Amino acid sequence: MSLLIKNISEIYTMDKDFRKIQNGFIYIENNKIKNIGSDHAELNTDNTDHIISAEGKIALPGFVNCHTHTAMTLMRGYADDLPLQTWLEEKIWPLEANLSAKDVYWGTLLGILEMISSGVTTFCDMYFFMDQVAEAVKKSGMRAVLGIGLIEEQDGEKGLNEALEFALNHQSQSERISTVLSPHAPYTCSPAYLCDIIGLSKEYNIPLNIHVSETKKEYDYIKKKYNRTPVQHLENIGLWERPTTAAHCVHLDEKDIGILSKYEAGVSYNAQSNMKLGSGIAPITELIGEGVNVGLGTDGASSNNNLDMIEEARTASYLQKVKHEDPTKLNLEKTAQMLTGGGAMALHLQNLGILKKNYLADIILIDINKEFTDYPHHNNLSNLLYAGNRNKIDTVIINGNIVMDQGDFLFLEPDRILKEAEMRASNLLKK
Amino acid sequence: MSLLIKNISEIYTMDKDFRKIQNGFIYIENNKIKNIGSDHAELNTDNTDHIISAEGKIALPGFVNCHTHTAMTLMRGYADDLPLQTWLEEKIWPLEANLSAKDVYWGTLLGILEMISSGVTTFCDMYFFMDQVAEAVKKSGMRAVLGIGLIEEQDGEKGLNEALEFALNHQSQSERISTVLSPHAPYTCSPAYLCDIIGLSKEYNIPLNIHVSETKKEYDYIKKKYNRTPVQHLENIGLWERPTTAAHCVHLDEKDIGILSKYEAGVSYNAQSNMKLGSGIAPITELIGEGVNVGLGTDGASSNNNLDMIEEARTASYLQKVKHEDPTKLNLEKTAQMLTGGGAMALHLQNLGILKKNYLADIILIDINKEFTDYPHHNNLSNLLYAGNRNKIDTVIINGNIVMDQGDFLFLEPDRILKEAEMRASNLLKK
Repeated sequence: MSLLIKNISEIYTMDKDFRKIQNGFIYIENNKIKNIGSDHAELNTDNTDHIISAEGKIALPGFVNCHTHTAMTLMRGYADDLPLQTWLEEKIWPLEANLSAKDVYWGTLLGILEMISSGVTTFCDMYFFMDQVAEAVKKSGMRAVLGIGLIEEQDGEKGLNEALEFALNHQSQSERISTVLSPHAPYTCSPAYLCDIIGLSKEYNIPLNIHVSETKKEYDYIKKKYNRTPVQHLENIGLWERPTTAAHCVHLDEKDIGILSKYEAGVSYNAQSNMKLGSGIAPITELIGEGVNVGLGTDGASSNNNLDMIEEARTASYLQKVKHEDPTKLNLEKTAQMLTGGGAMALHLQNLGILKKNYLADIILIDINKEFTDYPHHNNLSNLLYAGNRNKIDTVIINGNIVMDQGDFLFLEPDRILKEAEMRASNLLKK
Repeated sequence: MSLLIKNISEIYTMDKDFRKIQNGFIYIENNKIKNIGSDHAELNTDNTDHIISAEGKIALPGFVNCHTHTAMTLMRGYADDLPLQTWLEEKIWPLEANLSAKDVYWGTLLGILEMISSGVTTFCDMYFFMDQVAEAVKKSGMRAVLGIGLIEEQDGEKGLNEALEFALNHQSQSERISTVLSPHAPYTCSPAYLCDIIGLSKEYNIPLNIHVSETKKEYDYIKKKYNRTPVQHLENIGLWERPTTAAHCVHLDEKDIGILSKYEAGVSYNAQSNMKLGSGIAPITELIGEGVNVGLGTDGASSNNNLDMIEEARTASYLQKVKHEDPTKLNLEKTAQMLTGGGAMALHLQNLGILKKNYLADIILIDINKEFTDYPHHNNLSNLLYAGNRNKIDTVIINGNIVMDQGDFLFLEPDRILKEAEMRASNLLKK
C-alpha cells in the first residue's frame, strides 16, 4: 500500500528544529513515511495506490492523548460540580459497578469517534474490560497503549494475572496496540503489590502507567503513611527504574521533579480534568525545564467533559501562563510539540509523533479556510491551537491507513455507535 | 412581526429559579417575548407571520459578551506568547496606529460573524472608529453596548467631546445600540480627566465602561501613586456612583470587593484573556458571594484568540474550581446565568437575558443531536457548556429578528467579509 499526500500548504514536522515545509508532500509506504519534502514533482507516482491532493490544508503529526478512560464517555454530563469523593463514591463508582463488557466496548467506540474526529491518532487507556477496548481499537483503525487498571483491594493477585495475560496477549495481536501494566495509584496499591507489578514489568519488558499525585489529599496521605512524597515513595520501591507514564503529577516538590527527570519518566499533563475536579495546577513549566517528557491527556469525559485535544492544548498552555503570571510560558511551539511527539515520548513509543522519514505514518490534515477563526491567516498553527477546535480536522491517517476522509469514517459507523452508546448510558441509570 | 418557536425540546429560561420548560414554545411579537410555556396548542397561530419548529433543539437566552474589542480579530494570531509590554508596544499599538476606519468596520464584521455563529446576541465594545462599529452592528442585526475608548494622553478633551457626541448620537439611532462613556483605565486617565467623564456621565445619564485592575503591575502602580487600590482610587473620585461595567478586576482586596458590591458595579470576567496574557485569576467566587453582578467577556481576539463564549464559559468555571481546589465552585447553572442574564445585568441592560414575558427576544436554538459530544443525553446544558463549542449553535434571534437560520446569515455575507478582512489584515502588516 502506498499513499501520496501532495500540495500540502504547510507541513509542521514537529521535529526538534520545528521545521516547516511550504507546499510539501508526504509519501507513505505501508505504515511508514518513506519520503517527505517540498516538491513532489521529482517523485515517480505511477505506482502510487492512492493520492490525496491537500490544497488549502496543513499537515501535522496526529495528536497523542496520553491519559484517558475512554468508556467514561458513557458518563459525560452525568455528574458535574460535585466534591471529588461524592462524585466518585455516590456517582461514578456505583455506575461503573454496573458496566458490562459490551457497555465498555460501545462507550470506547463513542470516545474513539470523538478522538479521531478531533485529530487524535494514539491514546493511552487505563480501565477494565480492556479486551473490549482492544477490540474497539482494532476495529476503528486507532493506535493505543492499553493496560488493565489495578486497584489492589478489588483486583488482587487474580487481577494482576489477568492484567499480565492481557498485556502479553495483546502485544503481538496488532501493530497498532502496545500494552502496559497499570497500577491505579500509590494510594490504592500497597508497596508489596506495586513491587509485584514492577517485577513483572521487568521480567516481561512491559512499561508502566500509573496515576501519581493527582490531589493534595493523596499527597498528604502518602506523605503521612510513608514519610515520603508519592514520587519519592515510588522511587523508594523502584518503580521509576521501569519506563513509566505518570498521569497528573499535580503536587510535586523540587526533589520529585528531579526524580522524574533522572529516571526519564513520562508525564501526562491533564489540565482540564485537573481544573474541573479542582485538583490543582501541575508544575509543567518546571518539569519541562528539567527535561521531563510531558504529553497532554484529556482524562475521562466525565471530568473534562470532552476529548478535544485542541481545546486541551490551548487550556494547558494558558493555565501555565496564568500560574506563572507570564505569557511567555508554554508557548505555541512547545504546546504543539507536547500534543504530538512529546506525547509519544511520554508514552515511550518509538518513531512516532514527528513527520520524518521512517517514522510511523500517523498524520492529520487540517482545512485552514473552514471557520471564521481561520481568518486572517497570520499564523495557521496559532489559528489551530489558540483559536480552533475539533471541527477543523479534515482527514486522519493512522499507521498508513486513512481512517477519516474529509469527515467520513472508513471503519466505523457513527450512527450505530451513537445509538448503542445512548441506549447503554440510559440503561445504566436504571440498573 | 410575530414569530412562534414551537416544539422546543427544553427551554432554559435562566430565571432566578432556573426554571426549565419541556416541549415548550416561545411566542414573539415585534422585539419582545409575548408568551412562553409548555403547550402551544392553546395559542391561536393563524396570524403568526413565521413559525419555527424546533424539535431536537433547546432554547436559551442569547449569550452576552461583556467585554471585547471586536475589530482586533484582524490581529488574531499575529502576536502570541509575548511579555505584555512587548506585545502592546512592539506589536499591537504599531498595528493599531495604522488601522483605518474601514479596517475597523470589516474587522468588526468578522468578529460579529464569529460571535453570532457562537450564540452571542449582545456584546460590549470599547475601541476607536466606533461609528464604524455602530454601522457594523446596525447592518448585522446584533445588539451592542458601544463606547469610544479614551486614553487621556492621546485623546484629551477633543476625544472626550467626540466620545460624548458618539454616545448621544447613537443612543437613539437604533433600539439595538446603547452607549457608554469608556475611559480606558485608571492608569491611562488622570483623576481630573476621569472626573470630567463622570460629570458627563451624570449630566447626560450615560453609563460607564472601564478596565480595572487587570494586572498586578497596574495594581501596584496605582497603589503607589494614589496610596489606594485601583477600585478604592476610583471610589475616591466618585466613579462607582455611576452605573459602571468594570472589565477584568483580577487584582482585588476584600475592601475592593465590598465597594463593587455596595455600588452595584457590573464586572466582566475575562478568564481566557487573563490566562493567555498571564494577568492572574479574578476573585469571581468572592465577587458572586458578595452579590456583585458578574458577566463573561472574551476580550479581543488577539489575546484569547477566539470569541467563542461557550469555551469561555467552560474555562471561566473550571478556572474558579482550580483556583479554590474545589469542584463545586462556579457550577453549571451559575455559569450559564453569567453567560446570559448575569451578563445583561453586568452591562446594566434591562429586560434582557432571561426568557420571560415582555423581555427582549434575544434567543438561541441549539441542536442537541449534532456532535459526538451530544451523546449520551444525561444533561443537555452540561453537554453544551462543559463539552460543546460554537459549532452547536443552530439559530440566532436578536430583537425578534432571525439573524442566523440553521447556520445561514440573513443580514451578512460571510464570504465577502472574510475576503475583506483577510486583505485588510494582510495590508496592515505592509504599512
